Formats: sequence, structure tokens, C-alpha cells
Amino acid sequence: MPPAHPPVDTADVFALLERGRALSTPVLRAAVGRLAPPMDTVAAYHFGWIDAEGRPADGDGGKAVRPALSLLSAEAAGSAPETGVPGAVAVELVHNFSLLHDDLMDGDEQRRHRDTVWKVHGPAQAILVGDALFALANEVLLEIGTVEAGRAARRLTTASRKLIDGQAQDISFEHRERVTVEECLEMEGNKTGALLACAVSIGAVLGGADDRTADILESYGHHLGLAFQAVDDLLGIWGDPEATGKQTWSDLRQRKKSLPVVAALAAGGPASEQLAELLAADAKSNDFDSFSEEEFATRAALIDEAGGREWTSQEARRQHTVAIEALSRVDMPEHVRAQLTALADFVVVRKR
Amino acid sequence: MPPAHPPVDTADVFALLERGRALSTPVLRAAVGRLAPPMDTVAAYHFGWIDAEGRPADGDGGKAVRPALSLLSAEAAGSAPETGVPGAVAVELVHNFSLLHDDLMDGDEQRRHRDTVWKVHGPAQAILVGDALFALANEVLLEIGTVEAGRAARRLTTASRKLIDGQAQDISFEHRERVTVEECLEMEGNKTGALLACAVSIGAVLGGADDRTADILESYGHHLGLAFQAVDDLLGIWGDPEATGKQTWSDLRQRKKSLPVVAALAAGGPASEQLAELLAADAKSNDFDSFSEEEFATRAALIDEAGGREWTSQEARRQHTVAIEALSRVDMPEHVRAQLTALADFVVVRKR
Repeated sequence: MPPAHPPVDTADVFALLERGRALSTPVLRAAVGRLAPPMDTVAAYHFGWIDAEGRPADGDGGKAVRPALSLLSAEAAGSAPETGVPGAVAVELVHNFSLLHDDLMDGDEQRRHRDTVWKVHGPAQAILVGDALFALANEVLLEIGTVEAGRAARRLTTASRKLIDGQAQDISFEHRERVTVEECLEMEGNKTGALLACAVSIGAVLGGADDRTADILESYGHHLGLAFQAVDDLLGIWGDPEATGKQTWSDLRQRKKSLPVVAALAAGGPASEQLAELLAADAKSNDFDSFSEEEFATRAALIDEAGGREWTSQEARRQHTVAIEALSRVDMPEHVRAQLTALADFVVVRKR
Repeated sequence: MPPAHPPVDTADVFALLERGRALSTPVLRAAVGRLAPPMDTVAAYHFGWIDAEGRPADGDGGKAVRPALSLLSAEAAGSAPETGVPGAVAVELVHNFSLLHDDLMDGDEQRRHRDTVWKVHGPAQAILVGDALFALANEVLLEIGTVEAGRAARRLTTASRKLIDGQAQDISFEHRERVTVEECLEMEGNKTGALLACAVSIGAVLGGADDRTADILESYGHHLGLAFQAVDDLLGIWGDPEATGKQTWSDLRQRKKSLPVVAALAAGGPASEQLAELLAADAKSNDFDSFSEEEFATRAALIDEAGGREWTSQEARRQHTVAIEALSRVDMPEHVRAQLTALADFVVVRKR
């Protein structure tokens, strides 16, 4: 997707992501190390710290956008980046709790180029370790014992509830023939926007920011999340499996009613109608699982032709613009504003 | 089991349980009503408020020992029972989150005389609604926004973590040939003791009690939980299905290493050795699921003969005694102490 704004200085963004990882990972590992066996091992596998045989690994732990945001969040409120670390860890724990449970509910077999936890360790461990990470997230915040930590925990709980609402909507959409663009955006706001929003407010709240400041930072994070998800939806259909770590046509294989699909269906015209007919037949098909690469490619081409791909690209840019605008409504050091802007730019141009 | 102490005035205990239910259920229903569809419906089914077809029902919502304890907990700290209501609701939400997930992990098909949620609404809904109830538990406490609520949330999180540790231990025991009595007691302390302990401290903490008072109340609750679980383990083998709502020989069917089993195996002697041989063969058996009532009856008789049943009855009484002793270490209104004592008595004589 060509960016409609100045090119991002990728080196700066990678340095921010790396700082977030470097400061939060030791605290995250210590927290996970508190889990009773075998949950500590299963969690370590999920995070990519060990392989399926228990040998140390240097696996792909994800992009770590959220930890980077939580440290910037603390700086936005005039605190040291370290103030945001417990928030970064708590948000990462909630994010990974949801991945463990969603992969099981959705039957996803691959994540970050590796077999998912339920495939390797069984469904019971995926449920249990997800629960443990969720509990640990609250523990990490509440053990701080301050009023600010209580406020941070409350925002995290609100975000977690929205995240779960979003997953409920996502599941229900898979059983429905038609989903509106508005419903899809609401689901993505819950499933991706809410936790990203929390990542951007939690460091500031831990640093003593007032509710108005936290709310504006959440507004930036919410729209950034919607931009992030729009790009994810594009990568879920047209992404390079080498880069994303997922199967080709991943979202089509799962019959996900993602943004490009619902936008294409809403567009009308010959390609849209042909797509609607094909998807309706797919929903009733008994051998959908044995579809060839070509059959998925046909569907992807129709989505593109009906305008679903272009609409989603534009939507990512629209949300990016709203996110950046929110930043102007709150006082913060200029270098922090520049870094939050660079991170938003990165989110819409990323390939994985 | 014949009580080794004065008979309980059952009418008093039923009045306490009924008060707990009457004060907490409307708040619980309002909290569950916040969940996005279809999670609100699935949760309402789990709590027995509607049947599988969605019609209003007056189902068995459980014994409601925990809510009764949370209200008494507030009174123990000199507050009105109503002060304990958010605590009662939060503890019930965590308890039911764990039931939803445990029933799925354990493959249990019946609870409270009805099909379990995963049987009726599928595994994904059982996972999702469990997650939602867990999140809601924290929300109910943290939205109060006081320092006391933050302390209550922290205690609930600690208890939730132990609960999850206990379930992890319980699952691991099913794959092991031998489990010691000490390991079994540790597991039950985590799985049952921790949340009951929290139920007894949370009302007091919300009422402003100091940590020493809360810790002593938790000690009472922890040992009460161990007594409760010992009785549950007896009912899990010898309970009347009409009263318990579970299958006959329920725990034996699941090869649970519950207290009567591990105590019988630890006892030595001919019945103990015969039991060990049978259970070792069962573990390798491919047609265990088609065992007849007589085959389970044989195992139950051996557990009894080896002394596992009597040891567990005595253990319930030992834990009951320690629980009552803890109560003497904290100042509280005498009628509250009498009621906490009556509830402890009830727990060890109950038949369901």
C-alpha cells in the first residue's frame, strides 16, 4: 500500500520497538516464571522462548507494538519510560491470553511460523495457560498497590471486556451470511482497538495522568488499532506467508468476514454479486477444506475487483489520520509526539 | 458423616444462604446482563436462569455458600452486609468462570442436574463466556474506584491464580500413577481453599478491615475450603446422584485422584494393594468408559475397606476444627462468629 504521507524512518521505529522489547521482556519473563508447572513451560513455548521440546529458542515473539506504545505513553505524561513497564507487561499478557484462546476457538494451527499451543500441548493447556496469563496481567498491576495502578487495572479490565466482546462478534459473523461494514468496524474496534487504546493510556495513567489525557491517548490508540486491523485484514488475504507466518489466503480459509470481504459485498456491481454467490455456496459446501489455491485466488480477485481491497487501504489511511489528529489535543513532549506519529506511520505500511 | 460437634441449626444456615442469594443475585444478574449477545444468554443458561431453549427457568444456581460468607465477612469488620455484595458477586463470577472452563477441560457433561455449557452451546462459547465472567469479576470491584476495592481486587487476583494452579495440578494428577496425600491437599487448598478464603476476607476488606484481620479470615476460609472439598470428595464417590446432580461414582469415572483414593493408596494393606493393582490396570484400559456400575462399586468398596473413606471424613473434621480456631483470633460481633461457625458446621454435614 503506498503511504499518502511522508515516508517513515524505519530505523527509528525499529529502535522504539526494540526498546519496548528490551525493557518489558525481562519483567514479562519473570511474571511468566511465577506460573506453576507445566503452565510456565507452555507459556514459554507460546512466547517463543523455548521450542516444542523445551529447548531454548529465540523465536518470533510478535511485533511488540503494544509495549513500545506503553513506554511512550508514560513519556507522554512526563514520566520515565520505565514507569510504563508494568503496563506494557500487563497489556502483553492480556494480548497473549486472547491469542491462546482465540487460536483454539478458531482452530488456527499456526502462529508466528510455529504450531499453536493447543496443537502442541492440547486444548486443556491452551485454556488453562490463557486463564493464567489473564490473571497474571491483573496481578502485575495490582501488586503495585497505588491508586494509579488501580486506575490502570480498571482501564485494562474495560479493554479486556471489549476484546472478549469483539471475539464473540467475530465468531457470530462466521455463522452469518451478511455482515455490514459498520458491524465489522465495531467488531474490530473491540477486538483490536480497545487493547491498543489501553496500551497507549496505561503508561500515562501509571505516571499519574488525569482521565482527560488518558482518554485522548486512548482515542489515538483506538483509531491506530482500527488502522492496524485494516492492514491485518489486507495481509490476511494478500499477505506474503513468508512474512506473516500464516497460511496463504488465511482469512479466506477461515471464511472470516473481514473488512475487504464485507466492503466488497456492500459495493454492489457484477464482481460483488458474483462474490456473494460464491461465498453463499461456500457456506453450504461440505468440501470447503479441500479447496485448491486457485479457488481461493478466484475469491481474492473478486474481492479486489469489487473494490474491497482499495476501500480497506483507504480505511487504514482514514483511521491513521484520525489517530494523528487526536495527538494534537494533548500536551506532550514534542519528541514523544513525533515518535507516536512514526509508530502510526509504521503500522499502515508494515508487511507483517 | 456423623458430626463430632453439636448439631447445626439448619434453619439458621438456610436463612444465611438465602440472604446471600437474595442480596447478591440481582447485582450478579445486572453484571451478567452487560455481556454482549450471545454471551449474556449462555451465561444465563449456566447460572440456571434460563433453559437450553432460552425460556426462563428457576434452576439450581448452586449452594451459594460463598455469597453468604462474603456478607458475613463485611459484618465481621463491623460493616453492613450490603458492603460485601460486590465482593460476593466478584467471587461468584470467578467461581463460575472456573466451572465453565473446568467442565470443558475435564469433559464433564453434567452440572447442577443439567447439561454443561460446552455440551449445549459448544466449546468456543464455554471458553469465551468463562473469559467474560472472569473479566467482569474484576470490573465489578474496580469500578468502585476506592483503595479498599483495589485491595479486594488484588486478593481476588491472588485467589484466582491459585485456583488456576490447582486446576493445573488436578489435570497433571490424572496422568500420574501415584499422588501423595500432601500433594492432593495442596491441590485442593489451591482449587477450593483459595477462593473460599477470598470470599471470607473480601467483604471485610471492602469494609476497611486491616490486612491482619483479612488474613485471619482467609485462614478460616482456607481450612473451611479444605473441609468443604473433603466432603465433596466423599460425595464424588458415595454421594446420592439425586442430591448432587452428578453421575454415580462421578469422580471414579473421571479417574480423579481425590482424597479418599490417595489416602486409600497410601494406607497399605491388602485392600490398598488390590486397589492399586486395579487402578493401574484401569489407567491402561481401552474400554474404561464402558465399565459397569458393579466395576465402579468394587473400586469404591476397596477404597472404603482400605480406610480412605474414614480418613477423609476425619480430615473434614480436622480442617473444620482448625477453621473454627482461626475465628477466635479476630474480634467480631458475637452473632457473626456464631453464624460463621454454623456455616462451617453445615459444610461438613451437607449431602450435596
